[in-house]
Amino acid sequence: MIKDININTKLTAIIGTDIGHSKSPAMMNAAFRELGLDYYYFPMNIKEDDFSDVIRGISKMNFAGLTITIPYKIEVIKYLDEIDRTAQIIGAVNTVKIEDGRLKGYNTDGEGFVRGLEADKGVNIADSAFVVTGAGGVSRAIMTVLASRKAAADKKQNGINISSCDKKIYLANRTFEKAEELCRKLNELVCDCCVPLHLNEELRAYIKKADVLINATNIGMPPFENETPINSDMIHNGLLAADVIYNPRKTKFLKQAEEAGCDIVNGQSLLLHQGKIAFKIWTGLEAPTTVMFKAVFGSEEHKK
Amino acid sequence: MIKDININTKLTAIIGTDIGHSKSPAMMNAAFRELGLDYYYFPMNIKEDDFSDVIRGISKMNFAGLTITIPYKIEVIKYLDEIDRTAQIIGAVNTVKIEDGRLKGYNTDGEGFVRGLEADKGVNIADSAFVVTGAGGVSRAIMTVLASRKAAADKKQNGINISSCDKKIYLANRTFEKAEELCRKLNELVCDCCVPLHLNEELRAYIKKADVLINATNIGMPPFENETPINSDMIHNGLLAADVIYNPRKTKFLKQAEEAGCDIVNGQSLLLHQGKIAFKIWTGLEAPTTVMFKAVFGSEEHKK
Repeated sequence: MIKDININTKLTAIIGTDIGHSKSPAMMNAAFRELGLDYYYFPMNIKEDDFSDVIRGISKMNFAGLTITIPYKIEVIKYLDEIDRTAQIIGAVNTVKIEDGRLKGYNTDGEGFVRGLEADKGVNIADSAFVVTGAGGVSRAIMTVLASRKAAADKKQNGINISSCDKKIYLANRTFEKAEELCRKLNELVCDCCVPLHLNEELRAYIKKADVLINATNIGMPPFENETPINSDMIHNGLLAADVIYNPRKTKFLKQAEEAGCDIVNGQSLLLHQGKIAFKIWTGLEAPTTVMFKAVFGSEEHKK
Repeated sequence: MIKDININTKLTAIIGTDIGHSKSPAMMNAAFRELGLDYYYFPMNIKEDDFSDVIRGISKMNFAGLTITIPYKIEVIKYLDEIDRTAQIIGAVNTVKIEDGRLKGYNTDGEGFVRGLEADKGVNIADSAFVVTGAGGVSRAIMTVLASRKAAADKKQNGINISSCDKKIYLANRTFEKAEELCRKLNELVCDCCVPLHLNEELRAYIKKADVLINATNIGMPPFENETPINSDMIHNGLLAADVIYNPRKTKFLKQAEEAGCDIVNGQSLLLHQGKIAFKIWTGLEAPTTVMFKAVFGSEEHKK
């Protein structure tokens, strides 16, 4: 239940083609309500031919922000007046801020995921070696932010060159060329710390030396819920295993990692932190973590 | 309070430039709720330069209908795929039905007002003589529907020619030429029963013979609340005096008419019946009168 929308209410919405099951409306409205803000968030399925008219119309209506999801994360870019540098490098936008008819695009997928690792698991990105599987959209976002963190640490530490140590970001993908291309781009634009891997003994060797192992593919999500991106015999005790998938909450990959003695983090963390970042972008305020987590995941406590 | 908007919710909205005080959202949402329909109605102020983008965008979003108010009732016509014949004659649209991206325009101002006279006061339009003051948008709408009712009766009665009897519609306006032009148009297109009047003894003479006296000007509404379109000495016992204004509920015109012993009807009737017609256009269902009236006018009973 929400209070009625009036002429001053700032509307926000998630736009895609198949978003009936999105948990974002419950999460974002709980946050607005908690802070007593006159904002409202709702879901909208838009046909591909209609996206252009809808985005132009929304920019002139009483909207303050949008969450953009599949298949519009790339297409939306051409309607923006401004784009955040990270989103530009990723080449995809999932969050839009609307102010005076002007649209500014952001990508919170990578930042949300990485903040989850930092805030919920205390990971120091600069000091950790990562193996990431998958080179699709979410992977690009995560890789870009991981590399940005290393670049920032590099600059701060002034002299300690991350590209010369082995705390790098290793990217494994079924099509090696795609991993190679993404790494080359990030090495040029962000930080020279990304290394593509072949899916063979090379992968096994780098997982052995890694601190964090990330699944950024859709393997583990229906209809692939009985599959895993990494053979269980490659997983060792001491890794933090992280998955971008939140449904199921524990993918086959995370189950195997837990059995091997790893600490794990699932896609709930990404969803929550990405929502918090969008909330901050739209309202300028810190998001209320606990009510947001509760609204999406029920009575479960959000563990720091 | 409303239930949350989901991907299946049919949105409806009132669009204008200054609609903060509109009573339509409360009225329409009460009706949707009463029938358990997954519709939601909210107000939106749109800048004049933005109307075109907004109307195109809305036609591709999850909207089922719009109420169009000042200053867009004429401009909206060029975005319609279809227009109701009465709205076309009136030359203004205040209600739009949206289906599969197609927009059909209606005008419910005249029909709402006339149904109010019929349903709430038992007026038989064909058998009554009307004096209407004002030749602006609302007057055009009312005149068109009054004339249509007479035309329909004319056809039904097959032989009794309304244009030859004196149960006509007399139109008085400060600028005589405007009244003359509107009458000429309606006499041609709808029914030969409209007569323009000069604001002098001619007006007095026709009010004397009239059954219903209608104020369709904004005289009586702030900042003109101390003015009246008709001198009180022209009003006689036996008239039904009707005003399109609902705020104040009793204009100076209605007060004077009541003092003279007339039955009166204020703009609440127009607002309610127009809302009921829009509800029917959008949902196909009969609107729940009592809850709608209560939502707008509080605890007052809706008197038949």
